Amino acid sequence: MQNLTMLTDLYQLTMMQGYYMNGCRDKEAVFDVFFRTLPFKGGYVLAAGLEQVVEYIENLTFGEEDLAYLRSLNLFTEDFIEELRNFRFTGDIDAIPEGTPVFPFEPLIRIKGRIMETQLLETAILNLVNFQSLIATKASRVVSAAHGGSVMEFGLRRAQGPDAGVLGARAAFIGGCQSTSNVLAGKRYGIPVSGTQAHSWIQCFPTELEAFRAYARTFPDKCLLLVDTYNVIKSGVPNAIKVGLELEAEGHHFVGIRLDSGDLTYLSREARRMLDVAGLKSAIIVGSNDLDEETIFAIKAQGAAIDAWGVGTSLITSKDSPSLGGVYKLAAEGEQNVFQPRLKVSENISKITNPGIKKVVRFYDRAGKAMADLITLENEVFTEGKPLTIFDPVQTWKQKTLKNFSTRDLMIPVFRGGKRVYDLPKLTEVQEYAKIELDTLWDEVKRLTNPHSYIVDLSTNLFELKQKLLLTIHQDILANNQNQGVDQNVDR
Amino acid sequence: MQNLTMLTDLYQLTMMQGYYMNGCRDKEAVFDVFFRTLPFKGGYVLAAGLEQVVEYIENLTFGEEDLAYLRSLNLFTEDFIEELRNFRFTGDIDAIPEGTPVFPFEPLIRIKGRIMETQLLETAILNLVNFQSLIATKASRVVSAAHGGSVMEFGLRRAQGPDAGVLGARAAFIGGCQSTSNVLAGKRYGIPVSGTQAHSWIQCFPTELEAFRAYARTFPDKCLLLVDTYNVIKSGVPNAIKVGLELEAEGHHFVGIRLDSGDLTYLSREARRMLDVAGLKSAIIVGSNDLDEETIFAIKAQGAAIDAWGVGTSLITSKDSPSLGGVYKLAAEGEQNVFQPRLKVSENISKITNPGIKKVVRFYDRAGKAMADLITLENEVFTEGKPLTIFDPVQTWKQKTLKNFSTRDLMIPVFRGGKRVYDLPKLTEVQEYAKIELDTLWDEVKRLTNPHSYIVDLSTNLFELKQKLLLTIHQDILANNQNQGVDQNVDR
Repeated sequence: MQNLTMLTDLYQLTMMQGYYMNGCRDKEAVFDVFFRTLPFKGGYVLAAGLEQVVEYIENLTFGEEDLAYLRSLNLFTEDFIEELRNFRFTGDIDAIPEGTPVFPFEPLIRIKGRIMETQLLETAILNLVNFQSLIATKASRVVSAAHGGSVMEFGLRRAQGPDAGVLGARAAFIGGCQSTSNVLAGKRYGIPVSGTQAHSWIQCFPTELEAFRAYARTFPDKCLLLVDTYNVIKSGVPNAIKVGLELEAEGHHFVGIRLDSGDLTYLSREARRMLDVAGLKSAIIVGSNDLDEETIFAIKAQGAAIDAWGVGTSLITSKDSPSLGGVYKLAAEGEQNVFQPRLKVSENISKITNPGIKKVVRFYDRAGKAMADLITLENEVFTEGKPLTIFDPVQTWKQKTLKNFSTRDLMIPVFRGGKRVYDLPKLTEVQEYAKIELDTLWDEVKRLTNPHSYIVDLSTNLFELKQKLLLTIHQDILANNQNQGVDQNVDR
Repeated sequence: MQNLTMLTDLYQLTMMQGYYMNGCRDKEAVFDVFFRTLPFKGGYVLAAGLEQVVEYIENLTFGEEDLAYLRSLNLFTEDFIEELRNFRFTGDIDAIPEGTPVFPFEPLIRIKGRIMETQLLETAILNLVNFQSLIATKASRVVSAAHGGSVMEFGLRRAQGPDAGVLGARAAFIGGCQSTSNVLAGKRYGIPVSGTQAHSWIQCFPTELEAFRAYARTFPDKCLLLVDTYNVIKSGVPNAIKVGLELEAEGHHFVGIRLDSGDLTYLSREARRMLDVAGLKSAIIVGSNDLDEETIFAIKAQGAAIDAWGVGTSLITSKDSPSLGGVYKLAAEGEQNVFQPRLKVSENISKITNPGIKKVVRFYDRAGKAMADLITLENEVFTEGKPLTIFDPVQTWKQKTLKNFSTRDLMIPVFRGGKRVYDLPKLTEVQEYAKIELDTLWDEVKRLTNPHSYIVDLSTNLFELKQKLLLTIHQDILANNQNQGVDQNVDR
């Protein structure tokens, strides 16, 4: 990946110079990456993008061209630019691995280091994690709707730029897509690539049958034919059957057909019947044409005979929810590795942050299903199986006692003192892990519409710390009211 | 920009090998890039992305790693891979310059060359043009709503990957944004960068006043203060006024304040009054917080005193319309530079393509306002001023006679025989050109909601060619009906 050091908002650099010039250069901070709202009105998010975050941080260094550009802005002092010349990330990062289902307010990534460093990282980390987590989640919904049918990612031409196509294909693979049409993504990440011919191929030959035969000659063992250029039932399928039988007679395996228009339910059932009658029972039917999870769900519910789905624009742009609102918020401040928890207040209760250095613990029942998550302080331990009563942090009377549980800490160390301590898994491993992880969620949580809300509570210790800090701040505000007339806190 | 040769759909390569192995390697083709539907239910699209298309084509070459990867797929013959090793673009490209308002069905880019070459280009060209045209259009809508107020692009953290942030900032600048927060976009494209401090800065100091003073010390002449961390009216604005007056007393210019939450209309009017009373009449007020063109329009209509707008997620992801459906369709086929027009039929009348090698002519009235566009054949000439009757290509009875007009051919030559013949303008020139071009459209066409439809007709020659081809094809279909029973044409 290219060096993304300059992929940041200008205000990170102006604030860094401000910290540098105002005696805060050795101040340390802990930031959490989290989101507040689930996209697609869905039940979960599939974390993704960590590998790109790791690459970004390992390549983090300002080049001479970068420094010359910054100097040209007439904003920064030479001292500060010299500081940037030696800039490296020297802190600690913990994160929830890619492919893990995660929920609102859970820290996905925790960054600890000098405030100068942690401030710079905000923009690129959010950019990388927001997009891939969004697309991995969208893909997992599409794959879930396909219910065992394979899903091919086809959206490159409508993706929001080259990276969106390539990183989107990567995220879609994590979410369970079987392949991509994107050759660069295939080369870079080892994702299986798929694709055969477009309507323009069919039209380049005098007849459909000649076009099919030419393709079959070129790729006798990978022959999937697009049958809707003229008429699916009267021309496309009969011609495909003719070519399929010719291929099989020559000892090749005929792959099948693709439908890219018309009513996919009706056409696929009719095509299936015709293929079966002709003895091509192993030929598959691929469906495409402006699909998303809802269309696939509806088409399948009507009994479509489609084995594989090509999904384009709606997946790669996450059309119905094109951004994930991940944020990067201060959780603690300190010096020389001694930290004080920090909390951000807001009129809006969902914008009050959780203070302190935290982790996420997932509780499983005996069957291995995830029952609930607790956001806890860093060093909390929960004795497996010993009954534990958890409660909703807002409606505290909503309680639940967990018994016979096992637990898992979701976050793992990724950087220590600026050095990577985490071996990045292969992408196929991430995909496999995501599948296993999704299997630990109840189907009710994964339902495409109106899913059941998964429980994410705070540990008692974290809850009490938060209440104490809120009380202190409230008392400060009351005191300030008398001095300054402040009676309201607002926040972005 | 990186080499994007592999940024293509696999089926382009399988079809290329098909053409190569089936005696079509010297066949030539002309493809048009166009879109069928205006995004945002708006009145126009602002063309963008051509510079990246030019860079893509100039860098178009398969490296040894690419070839090794393609070989590993076990799809391609050694002959074909050898052909790719020597692959260069050797054809002609004409295009409508970046920053030009364009309309459905107009060819934005016309690619002529060997079918092997023109086929490969489809995916990357669409990827590059679809996204930037979308964002330039969105930005021009936001800028239009701001009605003279300046607009800053702030969306990097929510953009769909790094390129989406950087190319999106570029496109937003073409659409009229004044600056971006994105430092890499600033460095790469010379876009002015802006940004000051976040809430985390304010919270890092014991009091708001201390935070403001620290920022003012660091950037005394670029001091824009974020006033909504505690309470805008009772704390933020009074503290900002204090620091502003201190700066002015020391001979500096105080820039102003930023509001990032709450009711921007009420707060900005109140803040304006307070700043004016304090004698800081030249201090500006910046508004941000989940803005798009509709919110800005509504807030301004209520009399908000906001001088500049920061716009993030909605702009960089084009939230309400996250893709532009640009397509790449065959217009002519030939050999040795002799071409036959080609037309694609469809049940859906809007999916029937326009045949032949075409251009776009824009007709202006005496005041310089654009009256209509004609899509015409390549060599058509229209005598300026000589009355010309144009007609809707579907509802042909809808006619209009143009008089006293001047004309302009919108397409310009970009490549000839694989060599670039077009000097790319500077980005500031593109922005200025876009502004002048938008001024040639009637306000009615640019209205954010329910705009007037701009007239795009076909020249009589093109119309007649299309009718003739449709008739021929229809007769072929009738003939085929008798042979094969085809009675319907479907299409993607």
